[in-house]
Amino acid sequence: MQIDILTVVPDLLASPLSHSIIKRAREKNLLQINIIHLRDWALNKYGQVDDYQFGGGAGMVMRCEPLANAIDDLQKEQPYDEIIYVTPDGKQHNQQIANELSLKEKILIICGHYKGIDQRIRDLYVTKEISIGDYVLSGGELAAAVIVDSVGRLIPGVLGDETSALSDSFQDNLLAPPVYTRPAEFRGLKVPDELMTGNPKIIDAWRDEQALKRTEERRPDLLQ
Amino acid sequence: MQIDILTVVPDLLASPLSHSIIKRAREKNLLQINIIHLRDWALNKYGQVDDYQFGGGAGMVMRCEPLANAIDDLQKEQPYDEIIYVTPDGKQHNQQIANELSLKEKILIICGHYKGIDQRIRDLYVTKEISIGDYVLSGGELAAAVIVDSVGRLIPGVLGDETSALSDSFQDNLLAPPVYTRPAEFRGLKVPDELMTGNPKIIDAWRDEQALKRTEERRPDLLQ
Repeated sequence: MQIDILTVVPDLLASPLSHSIIKRAREKNLLQINIIHLRDWALNKYGQVDDYQFGGGAGMVMRCEPLANAIDDLQKEQPYDEIIYVTPDGKQHNQQIANELSLKEKILIICGHYKGIDQRIRDLYVTKEISIGDYVLSGGELAAAVIVDSVGRLIPGVLGDETSALSDSFQDNLLAPPVYTRPAEFRGLKVPDELMTGNPKIIDAWRDEQALKRTEERRPDLLQ
Repeated sequence: MQIDILTVVPDLLASPLSHSIIKRAREKNLLQINIIHLRDWALNKYGQVDDYQFGGGAGMVMRCEPLANAIDDLQKEQPYDEIIYVTPDGKQHNQQIANELSLKEKILIICGHYKGIDQRIRDLYVTKEISIGDYVLSGGELAAAVIVDSVGRLIPGVLGDETSALSDSFQDNLLAPPVYTRPAEFRGLKVPDELMTGNPKIIDAWRDEQALKRTEERRPDLLQ
């Protein structure tokens, strides 16, 4: 799978995409990530890619021409399966979208900065608008990193133990049950007896019950 | 404001917290960020901080002792206002929580890795559990970076133009209206006439109408 990320702050993305699981995915050639600097398609020698917004108001808007030219160049040989714009007014990212995206071959993520990108790029090029949550970030870069991480770990072969992703929260619409490790007692708090039985039936039943209980308490909306 | 981040992959956080708005906030001394390596409180010389989970199953669990000792040490002089654990089963992060956190003086964010942290640390230490969205990440580091970014930009003096944050999505429970910049026409698509009038009344009315329309279409839940 290939994920291209178009940004005006490429350096911001360096460390999150070169550590941990994503590092492993890249080293195994299961995931190719290209961080692409939008200023390579700037309007002029000053590197301009943005401009004041029509109608006035604080915050710059990213112009059409650099984005359009970059996207045209980047998909000359092979078109993108999805051109994603990360924006707080997009569809809320979730585990299902991550699953779907993990099946694509080549996607582009456009990171907005300042007030965002000119609406006409959204109208002409973008195939999917995704929000990672109901809050505002300084730019789309962290949102892109979140999408890459949530998608990259689902590509077969990336996680060391395949069963680990399957028992994560949301894969079955339930939150994950509590987890415990040694010591068996810590500051007076003991690990639940069920987990110490060594009996898989009892353990699985306890985990199912706890997952359901936690979901009912914290996220009843997931059960509907 | 001081934000401490406790992690087993400190290097992952280097670039997102040293660019753009957050870089500026740190340079202005409005935000102090300490990325703290949990392995400084490891159980042994091998740097161990995790262990197999009781009851079996894939994925390691972060042990109590390193976390408890680290937190105790870190708040010896001044206790934390909030000890946050980032986890997919936490309360969903949003602009209101970001606003509230931006008023705190000293907070800690604990990043889980592998299967997460031992439940007893959540019971004994954590004051707030936050999820940045309904998807699973490889660790809490990106979630911590997202929280820092969403909170840091709200600290007074961080954004160059204070009015910019106020007109962002969610600050008034509405999505932001579309934005446009030059050229006035791009590939046959024109900027809406209202924005070209130079008349603030017409422009504001158009933006209010578009924000409402976009929210009705995409996120009717925000209007309830």
